[in-house]
Amino acid sequence: MDLPVIFETPVEPEWLDYNGHVRDAYYAVAFSLAIDAMMDDLGLDETYRERTACTLYTLEVHLHFLAETKAGDVLTVRMRVLACDSKRLHALFLMSRGDGELVSAQDTMLLHVDQNAGPASSAFPEPVLERLQSLAKGHAALPAAEHTARSMGLRPKAA
Amino acid sequence: MDLPVIFETPVEPEWLDYNGHVRDAYYAVAFSLAIDAMMDDLGLDETYRERTACTLYTLEVHLHFLAETKAGDVLTVRMRVLACDSKRLHALFLMSRGDGELVSAQDTMLLHVDQNAGPASSAFPEPVLERLQSLAKGHAALPAAEHTARSMGLRPKAA
Repeated sequence: MDLPVIFETPVEPEWLDYNGHVRDAYYAVAFSLAIDAMMDDLGLDETYRERTACTLYTLEVHLHFLAETKAGDVLTVRMRVLACDSKRLHALFLMSRGDGELVSAQDTMLLHVDQNAGPASSAFPEPVLERLQSLAKGHAALPAAEHTARSMGLRPKAA
Repeated sequence: MDLPVIFETPVEPEWLDYNGHVRDAYYAVAFSLAIDAMMDDLGLDETYRERTACTLYTLEVHLHFLAETKAGDVLTVRMRVLACDSKRLHALFLMSRGDGELVSAQDTMLLHVDQNAGPASSAFPEPVLERLQSLAKGHAALPAAEHTARSMGLRPKAA
């Protein structure tokens, strides 16, 4: 099973660093724009947000930087749903270059929030939850996910 | 011991999302700019990069989003060195608002790279390594770090 592309963007000029490569944090910007596209696709779009004052908050992200990208590259983002519950979506976003090379992965925990209630966490609308559960079930058949979050550290060397 | 501020920035207008809050990924942009400031302070600055073709590559980051920020806020970033070896720096960057609230933490693994050699990993210049080792030793006296990287997941509920 191939994961469908949920977002595509050219590398924007303001994303480049002094090396002419995309600065690390702009991978996160591209993933964030991909999450906007996912929200639109799920029906958590601007109309929904204005009507309900509900939206998604990002709780945590873990990014792996795997390859460089530069001006002229077109980046595509795919989403794998790792898990969901009534309020939370745990998903891995995978970014590729035009040549197919995987350039970054972002493990992401999102929370559905009612901004008129605190803000406080709030259950997904039922059709959204059903869609996410369906995606999670389908994606569970894929091989074990790589490039997910993990604790980070350096193994001490003998002094 | 208080960690010194290594970077300060106002919230830039282009960082705001549809809610008028800083979009998640622009916390990462502010952390990336803070790492630029750290590099300048360590002597891994533009002159060094041009002379040696060496720089730092970001391997992985894990961000916790702890509080909202909005237009008018001034963000300050502090750095805690968690560990280093001859080529790698493992550091936790902590971002606060003007009111002192901790708004985000970024656990970060950086690699010193010689871009003329592949690129390939390369040992830090000796004075930089000594400075990092000194910081790591001092910061080891602090209480255990919170908001570091960790695996992410949702505990399954009984169906």
